[in-house]
Amino acid sequence: MEAVDAVPVHLNGKVAIEDFDLTVVEAENGDKQNEREIVLGKNVHTTCLEVTEPEANDESTGDKEAYMASVLARYRKNLMERTKHHLGYPYNLDFDYGALGQLQHFSINNLGDPFIESNYGVHSRQFEVGVLDWFARLWEIEKSEYWGYITNCGTEGNLHGILVGREVFPDGILYASRESHYSVFKAARMYRMGCVKVDCLVSGEIDCADFKVKLLANKDKPAIINVNIGTTVKGAVDDLDLVIQTLEESGFSQDRFYIHCDGALFGLMLPFVKRAPKVTFKKPIGSVSVSGHKFVGCPMPCGVQITRMEHINVLSSNVEYLASRDATIMGSRNGHAPIFLWYTLNRKGYKGFQKEVQKCLRNAYYLKDRLRDAGISAMLNELSSTVVFERPIDEDFVRRWQLACQGNIAHVVVMPSVTIEKLDDFVNELVEKRSTWYQDEKARPPCIAADVGSQNCSCDLHK
Amino acid sequence: MEAVDAVPVHLNGKVAIEDFDLTVVEAENGDKQNEREIVLGKNVHTTCLEVTEPEANDESTGDKEAYMASVLARYRKNLMERTKHHLGYPYNLDFDYGALGQLQHFSINNLGDPFIESNYGVHSRQFEVGVLDWFARLWEIEKSEYWGYITNCGTEGNLHGILVGREVFPDGILYASRESHYSVFKAARMYRMGCVKVDCLVSGEIDCADFKVKLLANKDKPAIINVNIGTTVKGAVDDLDLVIQTLEESGFSQDRFYIHCDGALFGLMLPFVKRAPKVTFKKPIGSVSVSGHKFVGCPMPCGVQITRMEHINVLSSNVEYLASRDATIMGSRNGHAPIFLWYTLNRKGYKGFQKEVQKCLRNAYYLKDRLRDAGISAMLNELSSTVVFERPIDEDFVRRWQLACQGNIAHVVVMPSVTIEKLDDFVNELVEKRSTWYQDEKARPPCIAADVGSQNCSCDLHK
Repeated sequence: MEAVDAVPVHLNGKVAIEDFDLTVVEAENGDKQNEREIVLGKNVHTTCLEVTEPEANDESTGDKEAYMASVLARYRKNLMERTKHHLGYPYNLDFDYGALGQLQHFSINNLGDPFIESNYGVHSRQFEVGVLDWFARLWEIEKSEYWGYITNCGTEGNLHGILVGREVFPDGILYASRESHYSVFKAARMYRMGCVKVDCLVSGEIDCADFKVKLLANKDKPAIINVNIGTTVKGAVDDLDLVIQTLEESGFSQDRFYIHCDGALFGLMLPFVKRAPKVTFKKPIGSVSVSGHKFVGCPMPCGVQITRMEHINVLSSNVEYLASRDATIMGSRNGHAPIFLWYTLNRKGYKGFQKEVQKCLRNAYYLKDRLRDAGISAMLNELSSTVVFERPIDEDFVRRWQLACQGNIAHVVVMPSVTIEKLDDFVNELVEKRSTWYQDEKARPPCIAADVGSQNCSCDLHK
Repeated sequence: MEAVDAVPVHLNGKVAIEDFDLTVVEAENGDKQNEREIVLGKNVHTTCLEVTEPEANDESTGDKEAYMASVLARYRKNLMERTKHHLGYPYNLDFDYGALGQLQHFSINNLGDPFIESNYGVHSRQFEVGVLDWFARLWEIEKSEYWGYITNCGTEGNLHGILVGREVFPDGILYASRESHYSVFKAARMYRMGCVKVDCLVSGEIDCADFKVKLLANKDKPAIINVNIGTTVKGAVDDLDLVIQTLEESGFSQDRFYIHCDGALFGLMLPFVKRAPKVTFKKPIGSVSVSGHKFVGCPMPCGVQITRMEHINVLSSNVEYLASRDATIMGSRNGHAPIFLWYTLNRKGYKGFQKEVQKCLRNAYYLKDRLRDAGISAMLNELSSTVVFERPIDEDFVRRWQLACQGNIAHVVVMPSVTIEKLDDFVNELVEKRSTWYQDEKARPPCIAADVGSQNCSCDLHK
């Protein structure tokens, strides 16, 4: 990773900062991707920004303040550069919350259930419930029939949805496609649930033929299903209607299954895409979660979790369960996040999001076409703004553009902050660098037909 | 709860805001405390701040911006008032993070393990590891021997510590005193662990005689123990040394128990109190968690979790477990929190915290003495800044000062932001109001000897 500003700082004998990008372990490469050993970075404790004890005369000299100010200024510069070169993660970095700066110095904490009053007065429940109502309207569930809260991130939404499913069906088996987010499998293990992995199509969608086989093999137990509204790597949208149909065909009536929809990114985009299968509580689903820092954009991770009130009553009637009336996972919750979301939703409205979604889809098509035109393997699912393509072999390039990679593929998630200009810069740089990577006849671009299908692969065999 | 500014706002036909304090359910009173039914507030969806769709001409008229600016200004005014009258929750509201305002518009996300590099560049791992190192030094564990991360709140620390304990001893039984935080029992249920509640002394400390009886009744299974470094209600500190001694006397060798220390508030105060039992990894403990928004003070909830590297290796070697190398509970984590903590730790240092702890303990004694002098039942544990006293019977008074209550007792947690002047205001108001509550001979102050001991009770029987 390139150092933005590599001149060491020596101030008053305090820690030297040589590089703000903390490169703690060897670069991950394709082969190492599947290893899971925790490796403590060799120099992580020396390259970090040490906390030092103030010196006796610090207050009079102002040295410590000056030191910290310089650290923060350099860090800010680095953040600006890193924010500019960012394509791989589905975060909308395009927001302006200047109007909310006035609230930063309050310790805003939404303790426990948003619908149950707390004596702690420095909260933002009134914003939180306003945001939840907006999402309830989006996903078509009455105010009197839903329960929800603003979570710390998409993972908390999944942990909550799957926990609710388990409480509704204590002996239920969790079904999730192999390309589901890892938090889904983490939840199964945490909660000691039986878990069955279901195969995927090349697109990344759940393979309902395989799903049916696995359902039939476990007919005696209720089914808890994680449905992906946009997978992490390929942005694939599971066909909710086909999942429900498969359950019915396999003999699972509605009182024997629970569907959690992991809508991390696309849960908010999909409602604005024509032709897309609708995520709605008018269908027999139990919960939907979405991340707030992704499509909406927010300075910190957060998410929205909506479920049916009846399920929360099941959960909360189990007194021993919670030993409190708090049906959230985390107790204390960041009260700033709901205000950020409230602010953006108010400014953009449904119409504003619709426009942004259309722009993202258009730009994603543009990127896919430009890559294919340059002879680079690339795939774009119909309902998605995630462009999957051949992994660049130069790790410096991968880091510079902060691409998320898996095996031989990488992806760019086209968010509202990703403009045509940025995509042009990216493709031009990729094409130029790539011509040097593969100038030697011995090195050839990898075949990624197994990941994207042969029709999307431009390797020597498939082009 | 008094409305700070009760004049309805009517702007452009948009939602009227009559009261920023969202009083969603009937006041909780002593009798209702133990009910756990989730009750949706009657008017919660109408008193919340609705998100409205922008109108076509909003951009030219500026009405929507004006509306939002007025909502935020009124909310800010309310937060100021609520922050001023705040005594019941252990949050240090006295901080100045003005220097960090420049970072607010970055989407800072520490994805996954702090020690494993991510391609996402907009992170603050270098600050996070600096903060973790500081806490590792405080709790006496070598940099090469610990693993940890900055959590979203104290609850996440408990969820993590207990999960690590369960992974180390899959058939272990969880022991926790009745006065442990509810998240401990929530964890047991989430993780499907056997859980044994241990009795408490009047002080709120774990009763090791009862602990021994319960250990002996479950000798065949390993023990996972939650030790409270400051209970939520009474600020009681469990005697860690006696807990370890009890385990040994009951035949539990060190390879058959795991101790998680829940140091939500006092985990950071205790090291600076003379005579206090030491929380240190030189003793056979497995993990310690502490909240960052409590004694340190931070605009949003956060916490620090430190455990032994060897335990994380056990956890991560279980590949099926995580399906990734991420040993945290939440995946995406707020990258601003570590910077807030780093900033405060650097400015105050160990010496600064020591001074603040001493001030808090002094002020807590002052409050206890003033209450007792006024004939009000009150207790203060030796190592604590939490003053427990007779619950005021006027709910408006409880809300005005944001007191946390349980049954017949209330408490004030004396934090650095709680000055002698504020305590004087509080006691003077309490004494004045109380004289009206009990002016009629028929109403008498409650006996709280069962909660605080007869020597601390000033009821008619014990005074």
